[in-house]
Amino acid sequence: MTTPSLSVVALAGGVGGAKLAHGLALVLPPERLTIVVNTGDDFEHLGLSISPDLDTVMYGLAGVANPATGWGRADEGWRFMETVRAYGGPDWFNLGDRDLATHVLRSERLRQGASLTTVTRELCTALGIGPRVLPMSDEPVRTRVDTEVGELAFQQYFVAQRCAPRATAIRFAGAETARPSPEVRRALAEADLIVICPSNPFLSIDPILAVPGMRAAVQARPVVAVSPIVGGQAIKGPAAKLLGELGHDVSALSVARYFVGLAAGFVLDTVDADLAPAVEALGLRALVTASVMRTDAERAALATAVLEVFGRSG
Amino acid sequence: MTTPSLSVVALAGGVGGAKLAHGLALVLPPERLTIVVNTGDDFEHLGLSISPDLDTVMYGLAGVANPATGWGRADEGWRFMETVRAYGGPDWFNLGDRDLATHVLRSERLRQGASLTTVTRELCTALGIGPRVLPMSDEPVRTRVDTEVGELAFQQYFVAQRCAPRATAIRFAGAETARPSPEVRRALAEADLIVICPSNPFLSIDPILAVPGMRAAVQARPVVAVSPIVGGQAIKGPAAKLLGELGHDVSALSVARYFVGLAAGFVLDTVDADLAPAVEALGLRALVTASVMRTDAERAALATAVLEVFGRSG
Repeated sequence: MTTPSLSVVALAGGVGGAKLAHGLALVLPPERLTIVVNTGDDFEHLGLSISPDLDTVMYGLAGVANPATGWGRADEGWRFMETVRAYGGPDWFNLGDRDLATHVLRSERLRQGASLTTVTRELCTALGIGPRVLPMSDEPVRTRVDTEVGELAFQQYFVAQRCAPRATAIRFAGAETARPSPEVRRALAEADLIVICPSNPFLSIDPILAVPGMRAAVQARPVVAVSPIVGGQAIKGPAAKLLGELGHDVSALSVARYFVGLAAGFVLDTVDADLAPAVEALGLRALVTASVMRTDAERAALATAVLEVFGRSG
Repeated sequence: MTTPSLSVVALAGGVGGAKLAHGLALVLPPERLTIVVNTGDDFEHLGLSISPDLDTVMYGLAGVANPATGWGRADEGWRFMETVRAYGGPDWFNLGDRDLATHVLRSERLRQGASLTTVTRELCTALGIGPRVLPMSDEPVRTRVDTEVGELAFQQYFVAQRCAPRATAIRFAGAETARPSPEVRRALAEADLIVICPSNPFLSIDPILAVPGMRAAVQARPVVAVSPIVGGQAIKGPAAKLLGELGHDVSALSVARYFVGLAAGFVLDTVDADLAPAVEALGLRALVTASVMRTDAERAALATAVLEVFGRSG
């Protein structure tokens, strides 16, 4: 631990974000790490309140994530889905038998009036998670994707349509009336460093920043962003496809450009080392390091590298 | 099929009732059988609308019941419950991974405004069930048990407390404002024979009869009741215990006495053959036959015996 007193806030979306959040959790004392998670992917399905990104982060931190996918639970079963399918029920969104327990208990607590922040804390406590995991807001924000086939709710776009329709714009319904929770505001205000995890900028980071007051609170602190694009490709998900559809070059440099004015630092994978001068020319301090996280050791190594380079100046 | 044109309505509660309902389904054309099921055991748990007796009847008719228990599903999994328990969630009511699909889909359709009758028909259609399965009412009726430790909601009494507290009275909250559905009324009016299945008289049959108009509609048709007490013991559940606690002798004769004025016939197990004269002395025509149903063949045999003896006079 080179920077034991550093307070870090990670902004995270799905699988890539969860991996770096896990890496940070491996190298920081739990009380020094807060992970603010995108809830724009949240939706209601079969009467259940489902928060996919919160779950991916939680399961990763708890060591119960499916190691093959990075999302969902290990030792998962599918009898529930099999039976839903046999009944002719909606089967476009997979709900594992273990995963379902999270949704059922969360939905029940929300119906009882608990905030998503409170419910998430309760689930994390039960899972033995040390760092704080906070939804970006307790008010619902719902990502909607304008596409060539019309407007799609996020999970319709992401899961049912597998991101196939060409996107023309992305909006965050409800963002204008949402606000960061007191817990999020406090964590951001106290942060020595804010790490934008390698999550989809449009689908995972933008919804967080769309919550009124969030962008200013992030901007007020030292920020480093980690590229989700490596060698011109997304490690996972539609980030590369969306960059192209939304008029950007499909390159880590485009992501760096996207965060100009917000981030002071940018992390590039070693395969993109040649882009470092262009990133620096944007006014961002560039760190070139191995950023593909296949193992816990690689997660911890990336977290350590980010903290060593950007934490010292924080 | 000795009586192909007979229209039969079975009144059923849990496991014993489901077995005879299954037997009747094995020997009657599907369009000639309607099963009216107790919903006094229904409850809301973890945001789900659970109808235990409807499910036991449906699973039995569909051939997907757990053969060892007679309730719940075959090839069931418990990952959901394991995970609920790990979260510290309520684990007193077991919800199997497959069974859960029934509850989730039913709850969703009820929230959408479908009646329990409609939802049950949809589930039965998906399960390939021929006979009509009807909840006794679309309005909620909730069995409550007064006990030495106070009033208990049915599932608290039945599952959480395992029927251990001594019962002093049984009530059916909501019964006064419930009514039989049009489908139940029509089936009863058209019935050539009504079979009171070997279900708990107090917990399974009484709630059905407590729905205003039901007792008169049943009484207007030929009725035969099958004893759930065999050799002074209940095949399953607390029927024997409740008979004693509520001031009756623990005997099939007490059950016959309980149905005087409602039933014209009564079915006793061969081990209780010596009670037949006393049953007849009550004014009930007695049929003595093997009534313990361990196999499909035994279920069909009991159904056939009941129809042959009581269907002819219907």
